[in-house]
Amino acid sequence: MNYSELNTSPRILMGPGPSDMHPRVYKALSTQMIGHLDPEFVSIMDEVKEMVQATFQTKNNLSFVVSAPGSAGMETCLVNLIEPGDEVLICQHGVFGGRMADIAKRAGATVHMVQQEWGKPIDPQDVKAALENCDPKLVAIVHAETSTGVLQPLEEISKLVHDKEALFVVDAVTSYCGIDLRVDDWGIDAIYTGTQKCLSAPPGLSPVSFSERAVEVLDARTTPVQSWFLDLSLVKNYWAGAKRAYHHTAPISQIYGIREAYRLVLEEGLEARFKRHQETHEHLRDGLEALGFSYLVDKEYRLPMLNAVYLPEGVEELPIRKKLLNEYNIEVGGGLGAFAGKLWRIGLMGHSCDKNHVNMLLSAIKEIL
Amino acid sequence: MNYSELNTSPRILMGPGPSDMHPRVYKALSTQMIGHLDPEFVSIMDEVKEMVQATFQTKNNLSFVVSAPGSAGMETCLVNLIEPGDEVLICQHGVFGGRMADIAKRAGATVHMVQQEWGKPIDPQDVKAALENCDPKLVAIVHAETSTGVLQPLEEISKLVHDKEALFVVDAVTSYCGIDLRVDDWGIDAIYTGTQKCLSAPPGLSPVSFSERAVEVLDARTTPVQSWFLDLSLVKNYWAGAKRAYHHTAPISQIYGIREAYRLVLEEGLEARFKRHQETHEHLRDGLEALGFSYLVDKEYRLPMLNAVYLPEGVEELPIRKKLLNEYNIEVGGGLGAFAGKLWRIGLMGHSCDKNHVNMLLSAIKEIL
Repeated sequence: MNYSELNTSPRILMGPGPSDMHPRVYKALSTQMIGHLDPEFVSIMDEVKEMVQATFQTKNNLSFVVSAPGSAGMETCLVNLIEPGDEVLICQHGVFGGRMADIAKRAGATVHMVQQEWGKPIDPQDVKAALENCDPKLVAIVHAETSTGVLQPLEEISKLVHDKEALFVVDAVTSYCGIDLRVDDWGIDAIYTGTQKCLSAPPGLSPVSFSERAVEVLDARTTPVQSWFLDLSLVKNYWAGAKRAYHHTAPISQIYGIREAYRLVLEEGLEARFKRHQETHEHLRDGLEALGFSYLVDKEYRLPMLNAVYLPEGVEELPIRKKLLNEYNIEVGGGLGAFAGKLWRIGLMGHSCDKNHVNMLLSAIKEIL
Repeated sequence: MNYSELNTSPRILMGPGPSDMHPRVYKALSTQMIGHLDPEFVSIMDEVKEMVQATFQTKNNLSFVVSAPGSAGMETCLVNLIEPGDEVLICQHGVFGGRMADIAKRAGATVHMVQQEWGKPIDPQDVKAALENCDPKLVAIVHAETSTGVLQPLEEISKLVHDKEALFVVDAVTSYCGIDLRVDDWGIDAIYTGTQKCLSAPPGLSPVSFSERAVEVLDARTTPVQSWFLDLSLVKNYWAGAKRAYHHTAPISQIYGIREAYRLVLEEGLEARFKRHQETHEHLRDGLEALGFSYLVDKEYRLPMLNAVYLPEGVEELPIRKKLLNEYNIEVGGGLGAFAGKLWRIGLMGHSCDKNHVNMLLSAIKEIL
């Protein structure tokens, strides 16, 4: 066997994630390896925990980073809060709501669903009606559906959930660090996200946060969490315990990377970052519409960082997408689930969310069409 | 909040992992990010799969890298092979056998145990006796107990397990790429390991491999795997399916790192690497014994890469270990579980397994004592 040195093409990442990374994040990844129980690493974990809190806009003590990708963060939230026999209500308006339901079933929950046509947000009235017919321990919803580009308003639904004394669980994989997301103000009890979208860190970690209400539910469990690796009663001693007990070996280099990505977010400021995402989205939108593209989602509910668009009438998507990748090194995403082959998902995430990126993409599309 | 640039101390890692990394691995981590479904990344995954096969000395098709640390690899092996109500037999001679039992119980198994005094290997006769009193679906054992430094011979036990028509599951976290480990020749049906020990890649991934027998058991399941994230019926389509279906976003940069670490292993050659670990261990052993240290484990069963040693009579371990870290930047490990405060675990793993490292450590200990 003869394997050559890694030599990937200089891709420009404008799909649904991963996004481009800032040179400082690349550099941070190569920081000197140290031990996972080294006092220096414990200090880094403390800083990262503060950064998780700042970016989730929360004071939750149980805020940390799961040592695995966003889907493991989803599983962490659900399997820790659910015990066999619990009722849960899952809202689905795309691929990822369906994944939550799948995980909840595996955890032994009786799953009730609120369904919405893909491409539209969940209607609070539908949640209200569903809550009259079940008594769920938690209600889970996706803030930014990566499969459709829908922004889901959360505050009204949060109020309904809490009136019913249930926990409010939110998937913020694509919205995190790109649009406003207020864990405390909006009464979110458990939230997970990814690192490779608007945070622009390498994929492989999942920041999470749990409210005091959620922690009480965790502490009141009478059955063990089905996963040892994701069991918060163990993990929390490593991330937040007084003794910092060994649970598993943290992904040190990845933590270096996310820390630097957080530094960049905090230097820019959340408000400025959200504004940049919105303005760059508008620049892209104007250009795409001029080229004959049209949006799946109504203007009011469009995510700035995930643009789900139909191509101009009569244009086949795959050959153009392949040309963009192979001749221009630009990655955009195809449709997921029911939208496979039907639309594109153009990402404007974190370090990829930039006017020059938009201009490159629009120019390349013009040349190809 | 004001966070400074990362600036870790130049640690020399001679604990139970992570180990030092080769400069080429640091460099590979900073390779240009590309998408997780990019054809270039799929090719990298194919190469990494071949490298997993080569280092496990197996032809198993279902060989890949779990996107989470070694303990998630442990959980992957157990929760995929166990269905509720199954009997399993777990051999325990240290911390990690106990962790396997914990995970198996959470998966709904009836767990039988073979216990051995910590610091000694499991006696095949004890396994034989246990197999006469139960009918397990699988028997699990740790090849190299990181908590004690014991090398567990596997071939005789493997034969007993297969005579009973059970699956043989092995933890190779600390042995992998440091001592001989023959998945096919030794009849191992499921195996997991870590990356931050003798492979000297960053922590956060877990190479695994499953035999045809194990795949038949996976395919014959009648209940869903309790974990969605670790469900091999889904994960295998991403790593080995004809269509490479999206399951989760792979930890791209980590995969770059492990690929380069594998290149280094294959350039050196497994035999040469095992020899280097053995010879460096002997150099360390001679030096430690001359200083009054003594080994927990009998010579015949000592791991070269994990040296569990008592300090000279009357010497308190923690102050010396702290001095090594703070004044010499050398990390060695303390005892785990029952051995906390009682012994050291000195690692000679991968890139840390080197005569200069041994000389630095011995000289520093001499100066402190």
